[in-house]
Amino acid sequence: MLLGVTTHNKIKVDKEGAVATPDLLVTEEPMEIQLLHPGLSEPLSLNVTMRTPGNDFELTTGFLLAEGIINGIGDLEHLFHCEQVDVAAKGNVVKAKLKPHVKIDTDKYARNFTTTASCGICGKQRLDQITSSIDSLHGNRLTTNFEIVSNLPKSLIPHQNIFNHTGGIHASALFSSTGELLLSREDVGRHNALDKVIGACLAMDASLLHQSILLVSGRVGFELVQKAAVAGIPIMVGVGAPSSLAVQLAAKMDMTLIGFARKYSFNIYTGAKRILIKRIEERK
Amino acid sequence: MLLGVTTHNKIKVDKEGAVATPDLLVTEEPMEIQLLHPGLSEPLSLNVTMRTPGNDFELTTGFLLAEGIINGIGDLEHLFHCEQVDVAAKGNVVKAKLKPHVKIDTDKYARNFTTTASCGICGKQRLDQITSSIDSLHGNRLTTNFEIVSNLPKSLIPHQNIFNHTGGIHASALFSSTGELLLSREDVGRHNALDKVIGACLAMDASLLHQSILLVSGRVGFELVQKAAVAGIPIMVGVGAPSSLAVQLAAKMDMTLIGFARKYSFNIYTGAKRILIKRIEERK
Repeated sequence: MLLGVTTHNKIKVDKEGAVATPDLLVTEEPMEIQLLHPGLSEPLSLNVTMRTPGNDFELTTGFLLAEGIINGIGDLEHLFHCEQVDVAAKGNVVKAKLKPHVKIDTDKYARNFTTTASCGICGKQRLDQITSSIDSLHGNRLTTNFEIVSNLPKSLIPHQNIFNHTGGIHASALFSSTGELLLSREDVGRHNALDKVIGACLAMDASLLHQSILLVSGRVGFELVQKAAVAGIPIMVGVGAPSSLAVQLAAKMDMTLIGFARKYSFNIYTGAKRILIKRIEERK
Repeated sequence: MLLGVTTHNKIKVDKEGAVATPDLLVTEEPMEIQLLHPGLSEPLSLNVTMRTPGNDFELTTGFLLAEGIINGIGDLEHLFHCEQVDVAAKGNVVKAKLKPHVKIDTDKYARNFTTTASCGICGKQRLDQITSSIDSLHGNRLTTNFEIVSNLPKSLIPHQNIFNHTGGIHASALFSSTGELLLSREDVGRHNALDKVIGACLAMDASLLHQSILLVSGRVGFELVQKAAVAGIPIMVGVGAPSSLAVQLAAKMDMTLIGFARKYSFNIYTGAKRILIKRIEERK
């Protein structure tokens, strides 16, 4: 049995009639991350995410990096699944023990629940908040070309194990600038798939992030670009459409952002300098 | 200019070459919900969601219902956009003034940030937590048939204004059991599109929710089924695949859940009794 899938009996209905038949569904289960640190008197529950089980430690590592809680694998002492849980919850609580030198900022983590008298949030402020704490990709000179980018979605298909069984899961993958697949991960949540890829790369060789092209299976929203920018990935390719704020963030970070990646075409929204193109025609 | 879209210059690349051309992107902006209530000394900031501007009050109403903060439109005294904000943030803070009789439970809202010594979470517990507070759809006798369900995705296309311009947005819609479109909403986030539909229906006529078929444009995860179940919608149809926990929750609530809705076929995962079918063949 493939990890990450669950069996269920469905009824398939079409013009010919209805047939009851076994089916495979992508598994979705909640996962909680708890922080341990000498400065905390008890474990701090950070968040609960609905995810596809598998690669939980990579997911945790990637999430902690994206949230600015760690700066790299060197800030983690130990990751483990909590053992003091019911059988049914086995594997659904990950404890992340931070090294003593890591600075804990509980106020910062509480962003979803704050009592406030102030007022005011906008895309620009959010961009400013985020971009103030991460390095621009301006100096990153990675380049690639039309053929390589066009072939990325196709190269990923044989590695999308769960998608090929269920049709219901997102994928995220890193490729070298010459198009070799370095690693890929799947998850019911697009953010989780990207966290897993970044977490896996941090554990393997963090410097690869700065030399890679990221492919994501769906649309490209703000939070996905944020995760890629924090990780220092210079080129991001989405199969779907990007949002306005995703493009603004990519532009501000000098990241190359590509959308609607198809076999023979794609759109470059920002950072065209990293895609080797002979001549750009202007059309109004 | 259509609300919810932003212009941007992209470079379209294909085998013929590269062309710089203006494009429309779906707008994504953060929105913060603040609760006002006589029991709160200052506004309580509930959450920040990345959304497509437009129908913000519907989104707020739907979100508050799904989170169990209100039970209906009668619990809301007033919804308004905060005026004390920068020009750029105008419209991105919604204040929801609750009526004095509404019980405030700040501990419950703090679900993403709790200090805990206990451990243990699993799909079953989450199902139990959620299903304990909402009514089963067991007694709901709405029915529909093959032709009506098969035609839903097609009926929605002309109403997907932003999708038709950008290709990058989710839609959610309510239909009568005979297939008439009642209302539809779009958003960069699939959860927001559903919150908007439910919020709009609450403001119009909450009883319609119990007599309607819900169509969602993408995959069907746990949280979408949860929102539909809280709203009391008996039949939910997704264009994409459902997850394991989405199916388990629908089964537990006795909701009809359909996935992979295509022009001439779909899969029924739970609650087949609401889809009029002559005979179901068994296939192993």
